[in-house]
Amino acid sequence: MLNGRFITLEGGEGAGKSTQIKLLAQAFAAASINAITTREPGGSAGGEAIRNLVVSGTTDRWNPTTESLLFMAARFDHLETKIKPALANGQWVLCDRFYDSTYIYQGIAKNVGTDWLDQLYRQLFANTAPDLTLLLDLPPSVGLARTDKRGNVAESRFEQMDISFHESLRAGFLNLAKVTPARIQTVDATQDAASVHAAIIDAVNARFGLALKPAS
Amino acid sequence: MLNGRFITLEGGEGAGKSTQIKLLAQAFAAASINAITTREPGGSAGGEAIRNLVVSGTTDRWNPTTESLLFMAARFDHLETKIKPALANGQWVLCDRFYDSTYIYQGIAKNVGTDWLDQLYRQLFANTAPDLTLLLDLPPSVGLARTDKRGNVAESRFEQMDISFHESLRAGFLNLAKVTPARIQTVDATQDAASVHAAIIDAVNARFGLALKPAS
Repeated sequence: MLNGRFITLEGGEGAGKSTQIKLLAQAFAAASINAITTREPGGSAGGEAIRNLVVSGTTDRWNPTTESLLFMAARFDHLETKIKPALANGQWVLCDRFYDSTYIYQGIAKNVGTDWLDQLYRQLFANTAPDLTLLLDLPPSVGLARTDKRGNVAESRFEQMDISFHESLRAGFLNLAKVTPARIQTVDATQDAASVHAAIIDAVNARFGLALKPAS
Repeated sequence: MLNGRFITLEGGEGAGKSTQIKLLAQAFAAASINAITTREPGGSAGGEAIRNLVVSGTTDRWNPTTESLLFMAARFDHLETKIKPALANGQWVLCDRFYDSTYIYQGIAKNVGTDWLDQLYRQLFANTAPDLTLLLDLPPSVGLARTDKRGNVAESRFEQMDISFHESLRAGFLNLAKVTPARIQTVDATQDAASVHAAIIDAVNARFGLALKPAS
């Protein structure tokens, strides 16, 4: 029996990651492949407790370095208690955000530096790197207009950062995809949800030699 | 005007750190030297929020590596929002626990390794290392009997670890003091509080050329 594979979705606010991860899970279920969906920060009991600290409150509640450490802590809990056991159990793991988000949000857009983050990542996470990362790319103005409609004020700490922050997130993600082409596939997220889903199914099928059909 | 100095108290459970830090603060106040007392984990609003996650719950609530990252996050918040501003303001900072506790509790006694912790410490904290660390040393059986009397069940997660854990804490601290004699002074904490206080006053006076008198 094959081990499960680890797929992550990345992108800025309002890129449609939660919608797309649900559709992808439906496609796996339709093909009778055992897959779980999860998210960061959070995804495990400890991770969710840490998530509550990070995503709420004022935009300057945490120093970006403190924030990075909290995300790394939440991630390690999530990895040990949920992701690794699922993979070992043969399940595919579909995860909304992983280390790339910390690298881009804190390392680049908030300027805490990427060398020490990468060093910490290699120490703690390198053995469970994602097999495929789908980057949902769209202009921040489009993504933020979507999150405004969603209206989740309690978890809007990142959405409230100013537009230049979101522009630097996008540039960071696109550059990361450019230098990591073997792992990261960029998907045009300005399309309607069904088209984005179809592009994701194509990327997953190509990467893993599967024959998933788009969920309808 | 001189900058403040940074003094930390370390040791196992029930060593008398909170009592001793209060007495030391009284001695500073009596000499009209501006000093603040603080503690880890916690000591700042963000640090206390993280502390609540770490010190409560079952002994296996957190993987030791996750726990290390949470302590480092709480510490960075504490450093940036409280310790550094106080030192810059000319105040002395008297702190109940600092990085040595993470190094010993998680790095050694819980075996997460000290190389990556030290690397992270150097990256984030090296510019604000303690000027003096007072290690309150006593056999775990004596310390734990004291904490039993205190009866703070809500924060007893570490006290509930078994005796071999506490023995390895003590050995770790004593060894660290041995290899870091310029910074760490060991004090026999089996003595009564007044005698421990007197020993601490002697160490502080000697290290900084002060003439503090013991608080009575």
